[in-house]
Amino acid sequence: MNDVPHVLILGGGFGGLDAARALADAPVRITLLDRHNYHLFQPLLYQVATASLSPGDIASPIRWVLRRQKNVTVLLANVRDVDVAGRRVLLEEGPAVSYDFLIVATGAAHSYFGHGEWEPRAPGLKTLDDALDIRRRVLMAFEAAERDASADEQRRLLTFVIIGGGPTGVELAGALAEIARQSLRKDFRNIRPESARIMLLEGAPHLLNAFPEPLREAARASLVRLGVEVRINTVVTGVDALGVTFKSQGVEERLPAQTVLWAAGVEASPIAKALGVPLDRAGRVHAEPTLAVPGHREIFVAGDICALRQDGVPLPGVAQVAKQEGAHAARNVVRAIRGEPLEPFRYRDYGNMATIGRGSAVADIGPIKASGLLAWLIWVFIHIFWLIGFRNRVAVISEWAWSYLTFQRRVRLITGSSKSA
Amino acid sequence: MNDVPHVLILGGGFGGLDAARALADAPVRITLLDRHNYHLFQPLLYQVATASLSPGDIASPIRWVLRRQKNVTVLLANVRDVDVAGRRVLLEEGPAVSYDFLIVATGAAHSYFGHGEWEPRAPGLKTLDDALDIRRRVLMAFEAAERDASADEQRRLLTFVIIGGGPTGVELAGALAEIARQSLRKDFRNIRPESARIMLLEGAPHLLNAFPEPLREAARASLVRLGVEVRINTVVTGVDALGVTFKSQGVEERLPAQTVLWAAGVEASPIAKALGVPLDRAGRVHAEPTLAVPGHREIFVAGDICALRQDGVPLPGVAQVAKQEGAHAARNVVRAIRGEPLEPFRYRDYGNMATIGRGSAVADIGPIKASGLLAWLIWVFIHIFWLIGFRNRVAVISEWAWSYLTFQRRVRLITGSSKSA
Repeated sequence: MNDVPHVLILGGGFGGLDAARALADAPVRITLLDRHNYHLFQPLLYQVATASLSPGDIASPIRWVLRRQKNVTVLLANVRDVDVAGRRVLLEEGPAVSYDFLIVATGAAHSYFGHGEWEPRAPGLKTLDDALDIRRRVLMAFEAAERDASADEQRRLLTFVIIGGGPTGVELAGALAEIARQSLRKDFRNIRPESARIMLLEGAPHLLNAFPEPLREAARASLVRLGVEVRINTVVTGVDALGVTFKSQGVEERLPAQTVLWAAGVEASPIAKALGVPLDRAGRVHAEPTLAVPGHREIFVAGDICALRQDGVPLPGVAQVAKQEGAHAARNVVRAIRGEPLEPFRYRDYGNMATIGRGSAVADIGPIKASGLLAWLIWVFIHIFWLIGFRNRVAVISEWAWSYLTFQRRVRLITGSSKSA
Repeated sequence: MNDVPHVLILGGGFGGLDAARALADAPVRITLLDRHNYHLFQPLLYQVATASLSPGDIASPIRWVLRRQKNVTVLLANVRDVDVAGRRVLLEEGPAVSYDFLIVATGAAHSYFGHGEWEPRAPGLKTLDDALDIRRRVLMAFEAAERDASADEQRRLLTFVIIGGGPTGVELAGALAEIARQSLRKDFRNIRPESARIMLLEGAPHLLNAFPEPLREAARASLVRLGVEVRINTVVTGVDALGVTFKSQGVEERLPAQTVLWAAGVEASPIAKALGVPLDRAGRVHAEPTLAVPGHREIFVAGDICALRQDGVPLPGVAQVAKQEGAHAARNVVRAIRGEPLEPFRYRDYGNMATIGRGSAVADIGPIKASGLLAWLIWVFIHIFWLIGFRNRVAVISEWAWSYLTFQRRVRLITGSSKSA
């Protein structure tokens, strides 16, 4: 096995996983390295944060996903640095891993635009642990309000602010409104959960920037119907233990709030810096059209860590782009091995969707521009289809039946922040 | 509502929940207080620790379970102390809660028999967070072994020691053997998971003390068939970062092991001490036959915090005892309110079960003494029946369908150790 080129893939998200799969029949050996042991179906992560799904419903062990692809070794490890000249990756744990080709698909983290001090007060949503943290904060706020006697403090505890009006912000705001108005309605005695205040703040003049105008407006109207206060042209100027401060048309306002969620900005994974090439403002690698890193025919980037423009427009940070880039980078690795010229990447846009709540979504799929129930049904259908394709999960009883027949266990996730092991 | 007696129930486990339910039609107002927001179906907790089930499969928000019982207020809070003379309970958060009647059902925690320093190295299994911690440690051990090149260190990483041969220890050992021999078999490239060593240590001369001799032997034989090394008459003398030391027939032995799990002893919740009455060696309250605390007609205990003998034999720390005691304590509260004499508790034993693995269990149910597949089918049937009765959980698709029809969210669990919220 050691006489074939070694392809090292960093990251087991959509980009990394599809890169590995695209190399299934290639004359290479592959190492896929991730700091988590699971692949996460990120489009449904907000449903874990808002208590609709369990972590196990949207995550699968990477080595289980790739167990039949014999040319892949999966490693759980943290990258310390990339030694570009020596063609090897240094790890926090264990010896360095050498490579002939490197595909970097380590994604993005939250960016607080220079306000890192807001992070502990306004968590973002990128990992399973983030989602469980947000779920805990949201549920804890209602519990604390039930215990507290003061009306002012109850109001503060029941105020939820979401910063950022992209798909994640819109989905979180809609789901929080449903939790307060519907799910928790009968569960409390001292508070009325439906009186909770949910505010969505967006700096731009509209929500859902990537969507056409009528769908943006449909999404805003749906949120308002759910009782979400939508504030556009509004920039956050402070987040502290007691609430948020924001500015709109020159006027600064203060809102006491216990729970503040961050869905405003992302920044490429710090591994981009280790490559020693110019980065854009969000820390992403300016890739060549072939997805190669400038000056390095042996290094490719895919997904949120890769900055690429197509027809003058930057490609968005969505699953479809990452998947297509991952597979394309892998095919270019094969071309490089064969001594063939690399081919430029071309994104095929299958459409864009965001869900607002029960029976409500927006979908922009080629000629179809739908909102409301139709868009929601499309959304449900596509996500069930994807999820089922990705991880055929059923209930406890069938989990047991399946477990009995196949000897498998599916919920093999390493979550939590404990470092004691 | 304030003119009826106030019954304060501490603990939302089997005892506390059944106490609250037994008071559904009583002329009282009830506060049920727990430090978690969920009721846990503890008999299946080892399946979360061994990655078969998600936390959400075996836990339900207490306030959701009791949402229709209008005379109950559920509070999420930590008890600081009980002011027995002043008839009130002091909380870590918020004002004290006064009571007319108090039912204490706060259960038990692990006991390390004076070796508290072993706890971080040999975690026990009582809470959801314990289960997720154990799951993380077990899976991490295989991941670290896959990374490590040294044969000695791989062997240490793939050695799992379970201390304590009661039902929890037997179930953990069986499940770990199945993980190593079956579930993970195809997932690794550098190690053979099926070569993992799983050792079950028990100080007494036999496993499963509560079962009749033939079933104990059947359980031992099943574990051995799964490749578990069972060591009886073996006492642990040390647990450290590199392994365990144990003594058998005067001979001390050292076993290098990364993962050590504690299933050996329990100790009543520290709230027992706050009651100011004599406790037994395991910290449990010596209750009167009526479940009242000696000298306090207004305080009752139920479940693992309650020490009671029946026909000369101590009642075991199982769900059925807790449920029956909780309901009985509640009925005695009603009798006390009516000025009627309290009645003594009488446990009705419906039987005893433990599962060893796929298709293998022991069941001691009245005249039925079964082992193997029959016992396992009984076990599956009874647990599915209980679990379904307790929380009618289905798959993601039906979760969504149900969510859509009822406006409910079921996975509302506050887990994790973060205190930042």
